[in-house]
Amino acid sequence: MPPQVTLIGVDGVPEITAGDDLGALLVEACAKQGTPLADGDVLVVTQKVVSKAEDQVIDLRTITPSALAIDFAARWEKDARAVEVVLQEAVRIVRMENGVMITETRHGFVCANSGVDASNVGTGSVDYVVLLPKDSDASARRIRDRVRELANCEIAVIVSDTFGRAWREGAGDVAIGLAGIEALWDYRGEIDNDGRELHSTVIAVADEIAAATELVTNKLTRVPAAIVRGYPYLAGETGIAPMIRERAKDLFR
Amino acid sequence: MPPQVTLIGVDGVPEITAGDDLGALLVEACAKQGTPLADGDVLVVTQKVVSKAEDQVIDLRTITPSALAIDFAARWEKDARAVEVVLQEAVRIVRMENGVMITETRHGFVCANSGVDASNVGTGSVDYVVLLPKDSDASARRIRDRVRELANCEIAVIVSDTFGRAWREGAGDVAIGLAGIEALWDYRGEIDNDGRELHSTVIAVADEIAAATELVTNKLTRVPAAIVRGYPYLAGETGIAPMIRERAKDLFR
Repeated sequence: MPPQVTLIGVDGVPEITAGDDLGALLVEACAKQGTPLADGDVLVVTQKVVSKAEDQVIDLRTITPSALAIDFAARWEKDARAVEVVLQEAVRIVRMENGVMITETRHGFVCANSGVDASNVGTGSVDYVVLLPKDSDASARRIRDRVRELANCEIAVIVSDTFGRAWREGAGDVAIGLAGIEALWDYRGEIDNDGRELHSTVIAVADEIAAATELVTNKLTRVPAAIVRGYPYLAGETGIAPMIRERAKDLFR
Repeated sequence: MPPQVTLIGVDGVPEITAGDDLGALLVEACAKQGTPLADGDVLVVTQKVVSKAEDQVIDLRTITPSALAIDFAARWEKDARAVEVVLQEAVRIVRMENGVMITETRHGFVCANSGVDASNVGTGSVDYVVLLPKDSDASARRIRDRVRELANCEIAVIVSDTFGRAWREGAGDVAIGLAGIEALWDYRGEIDNDGRELHSTVIAVADEIAAATELVTNKLTRVPAAIVRGYPYLAGETGIAPMIRERAKDLFR
């Protein structure tokens, strides 16, 4: 039997608002569409519904932009209040030029706009933006625990977000929060077919799982989560920490 | 019906050597394992078998290292001949420090070691390294054309390789050659649920497909290809060009 993995979009999740029991809603949506969660599944949940359930939504009318935000916004035709939120969510500015803000968040992610997002806020208004979850590993654990409780099965949960990259056009989904799964798969020390020890192959499996599920979720339809079924992941509680390159070892920060 | 995509590893491909008809061997392997290629499939083929079929293998005993290669190799305990090959395959050095070489290849890829790889060369010797295909889009097209001929179906082909990234630990599979599929999915101009126009969401679908298939191929077992079934990709012949960020727009090159 060849190795086989199935990606299943989770449809029929209602519009999420602050305080919603996201774990319960996902368990229900999976069951309702005929693909109830089962032991060994990875449930990937896109960041926006997690942040909305956690009330990480900012009303821009409450924001007073700084001089820096006003200047940058004026130069690049942006909303100064949104720029201000990006600055407030950053612990470090990596690049701020050509109208692009690449920042480091308190989680350690290097990404555009501190992960602050203005699309599909779900308020029917353009005066709101969504922040990343405060502690995205804790978000993943909460969903995992709720699934364990309600569906009586042991799964892994990945919170995903869409990040751009250096050097390559186009964004892709990566893991920003983990529960029940190791972040990396480390092949170092294993022996290849030629008897040569693999020296440098550490695979970012959590990111690859997140990327895979973008094939069944997407930006416009309301498929905010996906099940990855049949992948023999390494169970563990590393969280995202092993995926964050240390500043001292990073040649591009 | 929720959206569903299946990833199927392609097992039972023999050890590939120069001149092998890779397209034919893949068609045969897919059929033999009970998952013959069908219209609308994406066939992802890992770089190493493509390069080996195309004889992109270098005998290090034929290489005379330059002074730069000898110095860098001595400082970081590397094989000076392999360092020399990396330099010869680069059009530009992006970083060369801490024992790490990040280079730009003639294809426009920014990656470690110009994509030159020393593991699983398949010669049973440690004196060989594998280069990237000379023209990876042409490699993908050749496989696609051969599948069309032999299996009478219309598929897309992606040649994938494992690249590291800035800022995040762990490598992941990305697309380095394409046939029959658009590189990017452009949501710009589409309207989200709040009536807000999406301004910046261009998704690197070819990279996400490549990343997905790493879940069923892997570094140690002999699964050098995978079928992605059920994904409604955009057919096209863009090749990889749209994925390469222009130097002038790149803040990290």
